[in-house]
Amino acid sequence: MKTVSTNKSHGGVQGVYSHESTSCNCEMTFAVFVPPQSEKQKCPILYYLSGLTCTHANVMEKGEYRAAATKHGMIIVCPDTSPRGDVVADEDVYFFGSGAGYYVDATEEPFAKHYNMYSYVTTELPSLISEHFNADMSRQSIFGHSMGGHGAITTALKNPDQYKSVSAFAPICAPSSTEWGSNAFSKYLGDESSWRGYDSVALIEDGNRVNEILVDQGDTDEFLDSGLRPHLLEGACKDAGIALTLRMQDGYDHSYYFISSFMADHIAWHAERL
Amino acid sequence: MKTVSTNKSHGGVQGVYSHESTSCNCEMTFAVFVPPQSEKQKCPILYYLSGLTCTHANVMEKGEYRAAATKHGMIIVCPDTSPRGDVVADEDVYFFGSGAGYYVDATEEPFAKHYNMYSYVTTELPSLISEHFNADMSRQSIFGHSMGGHGAITTALKNPDQYKSVSAFAPICAPSSTEWGSNAFSKYLGDESSWRGYDSVALIEDGNRVNEILVDQGDTDEFLDSGLRPHLLEGACKDAGIALTLRMQDGYDHSYYFISSFMADHIAWHAERL
Repeated sequence: MKTVSTNKSHGGVQGVYSHESTSCNCEMTFAVFVPPQSEKQKCPILYYLSGLTCTHANVMEKGEYRAAATKHGMIIVCPDTSPRGDVVADEDVYFFGSGAGYYVDATEEPFAKHYNMYSYVTTELPSLISEHFNADMSRQSIFGHSMGGHGAITTALKNPDQYKSVSAFAPICAPSSTEWGSNAFSKYLGDESSWRGYDSVALIEDGNRVNEILVDQGDTDEFLDSGLRPHLLEGACKDAGIALTLRMQDGYDHSYYFISSFMADHIAWHAERL
Repeated sequence: MKTVSTNKSHGGVQGVYSHESTSCNCEMTFAVFVPPQSEKQKCPILYYLSGLTCTHANVMEKGEYRAAATKHGMIIVCPDTSPRGDVVADEDVYFFGSGAGYYVDATEEPFAKHYNMYSYVTTELPSLISEHFNADMSRQSIFGHSMGGHGAITTALKNPDQYKSVSAFAPICAPSSTEWGSNAFSKYLGDESSWRGYDSVALIEDGNRVNEILVDQGDTDEFLDSGLRPHLLEGACKDAGIALTLRMQDGYDHSYYFISSFMADHIAWHAERL
């Protein structure tokens, strides 16, 4: 693991690191905020998965998470959204390929070698965090935005024992039913039957469970009906007995101006469960 | 005034606006955060002046000021750091010209027509804010970072009745004594005798006064000795009886990771004085 940069902030250290990923077969970069408490004790970890087009840097710069992370003594880990680099198969669009890994393990060529963000987030990255930071690996939670909200909820549903809690800002709730999601899943995963393993609504229908989910969703979000569809998650959670708290936020859009407004709330909510 | 964008955030509205500036003779862009309180009452205004290379956008994205602004019911106004555009004389360096207006009214050609950020910040921009926002113009304060900290302190020293309070993050305290500052002042202002009107230490030596100044300064800031020189401000304030609170912050650098760490403190400090 190489240190790209470190900056003291809110009493802790905001770092950026890179490493040769065995899951994605390329160099991956990620951000970690370490609160001051970690000098003396192991701290719980909250993973933040970002949305389409983002790297680790967007939430690091605009997410306003450090004050709350220091308040609650929490390590915040922010991976990239896809493999990167000249060796990685890509298409010249923002909704597929680089910046749009959808947190799946791809099975189809030419994507299978590199696009393994599911394994990266659930296995390789935690192992790296455990090795290099003063982290309590028995206390991990996960959240994310948009495509990263999809990633957080599916990842938690598939690994309910690994994550103590899950929340999301404006998540893509049923990617299989959307234009961009079905395009990505068909190229990464092939046959439609395999898509259900990475679709929150389908996972719940197929019996996967978490106890509760917190979702904040802006009601003027331009992607609300075309891509996010929280009512589908609401229906699935109701049928499955999952305690979904879906907060429709008046006048908020899809941007980091929205995310940062409720960031401290989400971190406090996870802290209660960690 | 044209609206470039608005986003709801932390209960208020983060806007970006542009207008044809009569001070700078070009189109200028600035950011205004309006807290929710302004729907019902006039709110005080806190101006934030940015540092070298910045536009209005840097602090808007990375400054983490909105939570505190909403808490204290404060309008935050963030101007650009210089005139912009093809009509504006410039040099291809980051420490002079575009992005480096130094908050002076230039007297020398070819800069005098456009580089009038002092008049812009103290007169034209407040007039625009008064016209378009629910602002209490009897309650204005000012702060800034680096070159913008210089701008805030000099502006307050020259207009002690206009601003209720002044603070800074890592301000350039005595630009006349620095390489970049003397380069800029010689080109904008000409003869060295005129520089004293835009140099905090010289202004204090020449009898300008404010009651108190709050300064946070990272002690690992790479520009501490070469460009910022807070000890010169400390000496001048001591001699003049100005209550300077200079807080040397252990391990902090010159970046927005530093600024955002103490942003809420500064806003609370100004709120007490507004």
